[in-house]
Amino acid sequence: MTTINENAELFHALHRRGEPVILANAWDVASARVVRDAGAKAIATTSAAVAWSLGYPDGDRVDRAGALAVIARIARVMDVPVTADIEEGFGRTPAQVAETIRGVLAAGAVGVNIEDSVHAKTGSGRELRPVDDQAQRLAAARQAASSAGVRLYINARIDTYLNGAGEPATRLDATLDRARAFIAAGASGIFVPSVTDPETVSALVDGIDAPLNILAGPGAAPIRELAALGVARISLGSSIAAAAYALVRRAAHEAFTAGTYESIREPLGYQQLNELMEGDSYSNSTLAARPGAGDP
Amino acid sequence: MTTINENAELFHALHRRGEPVILANAWDVASARVVRDAGAKAIATTSAAVAWSLGYPDGDRVDRAGALAVIARIARVMDVPVTADIEEGFGRTPAQVAETIRGVLAAGAVGVNIEDSVHAKTGSGRELRPVDDQAQRLAAARQAASSAGVRLYINARIDTYLNGAGEPATRLDATLDRARAFIAAGASGIFVPSVTDPETVSALVDGIDAPLNILAGPGAAPIRELAALGVARISLGSSIAAAAYALVRRAAHEAFTAGTYESIREPLGYQQLNELMEGDSYSNSTLAARPGAGDP
Repeated sequence: MTTINENAELFHALHRRGEPVILANAWDVASARVVRDAGAKAIATTSAAVAWSLGYPDGDRVDRAGALAVIARIARVMDVPVTADIEEGFGRTPAQVAETIRGVLAAGAVGVNIEDSVHAKTGSGRELRPVDDQAQRLAAARQAASSAGVRLYINARIDTYLNGAGEPATRLDATLDRARAFIAAGASGIFVPSVTDPETVSALVDGIDAPLNILAGPGAAPIRELAALGVARISLGSSIAAAAYALVRRAAHEAFTAGTYESIREPLGYQQLNELMEGDSYSNSTLAARPGAGDP
Repeated sequence: MTTINENAELFHALHRRGEPVILANAWDVASARVVRDAGAKAIATTSAAVAWSLGYPDGDRVDRAGALAVIARIARVMDVPVTADIEEGFGRTPAQVAETIRGVLAAGAVGVNIEDSVHAKTGSGRELRPVDDQAQRLAAARQAASSAGVRLYINARIDTYLNGAGEPATRLDATLDRARAFIAAGASGIFVPSVTDPETVSALVDGIDAPLNILAGPGAAPIRELAALGVARISLGSSIAAAAYALVRRAAHEAFTAGTYESIREPLGYQQLNELMEGDSYSNSTLAARPGAGDP
């Protein structure tokens, strides 16, 4: 058995400049199992799709217990490190963020993403938290992990670019300022979503004294190009889930209109999926992306 | 507000010979929302994918409470009837099946699928229950629903063909015998998976005095051909979920090897999915199956 501390150390070690850990984010046990089977070295959740699967929009709307139950179900069966996207930390105060961290560790995860936006409780608005406020939340998270004796990987998300905060010319400096404050508060790494242009990625790599996480996916440069810039972690966010649910929509629409099944002509096999759910070993790939026999 | 009884009556009425209700089975709230948005008149769950998403193989391995929690999350936000695939009924005895039915009704569903196989607790083996045994379980389910004052739609699954039970020449008669016993015990309709050839479908339609459910999907005849044979309900089972998880595997494998994102180039939009999760109305389609902006 790998201990939680060994898993945490392993996850830290996977973050290497220029040789990034690639995270194909999962949102339920089946997607985590399938991603692991495809060769994942670690499993990250996507908060957006966890929330969608439970019936909520992204943005601290899902209940903490519901989200942690998903993390626990995934971590229970994984033989590689699991890191949890916990949105804003599921709490208004630093103490509540600390409580979330204790729940994450109890669930068996060894990393977290914590974002520095405050989401509006309806609609899609969000704005940056004041940097000191967010630093206190990250410090509370670090303290909770240290008290539990775990070197939790805290990936501090900075939403300057994602939110389009301030004047464009100020964003790089604002991001570097935030990164310094967050690392001082205990962050292990920095995540700047919505940045993929090489010039900005390079400036972030150069200016941040911790592993840099970039969000990739459709429209972004291929992973090897991002790696060559010095990125240490590349994640796909909610895009795999959003593509999977797009397939669901195409399949349902096709069944309701044409009455055919072209959209689902390449399923995984029913027995393959059942066997994958039994498995406690991933030494060989169980699945092949080929058509399989259906079943109710 | 539609009451549970109005929903149950509506669901019964959707079963029409030759004009079948089409069920694109869902397994979490997001897939249910997306299927409803595509025009579903009712939402059915697939027990296999519910189990996979929670980390278990199909076949009465998931805990009852975990499965019912998924049903409740889906039914909470649906404005059309919801029917739950409850595998063997999550219990060894008729009394335990009745307990499951009370949980299904409390969760807000107005229909159930109950299968007449007993699954081996490991591996993929399964065999038919004796017909009287299964009839008692269905009668217990009907009694539980009647006591609650709900005309639950009980879809009794007959696994003669799926399991390849007995000599092929005996299967039709064995199926019709089971159907008679199950209808007498309180079943509302009969589901015979693994049959799609026109001759057998017609013989089942002619020989069963209740709406017939056929499992469609890749390899089956188009829905309008099955409808023309007199089928009253067509479901897709786990095939949509299995195709969605196949996409997840392709996407992860592509990211880990080529480092590109072709498999996920047609996601639903992040904001579209968030808005769909907020919605309590499906009067107009919220989603279009087009590329959308990504987000963590």
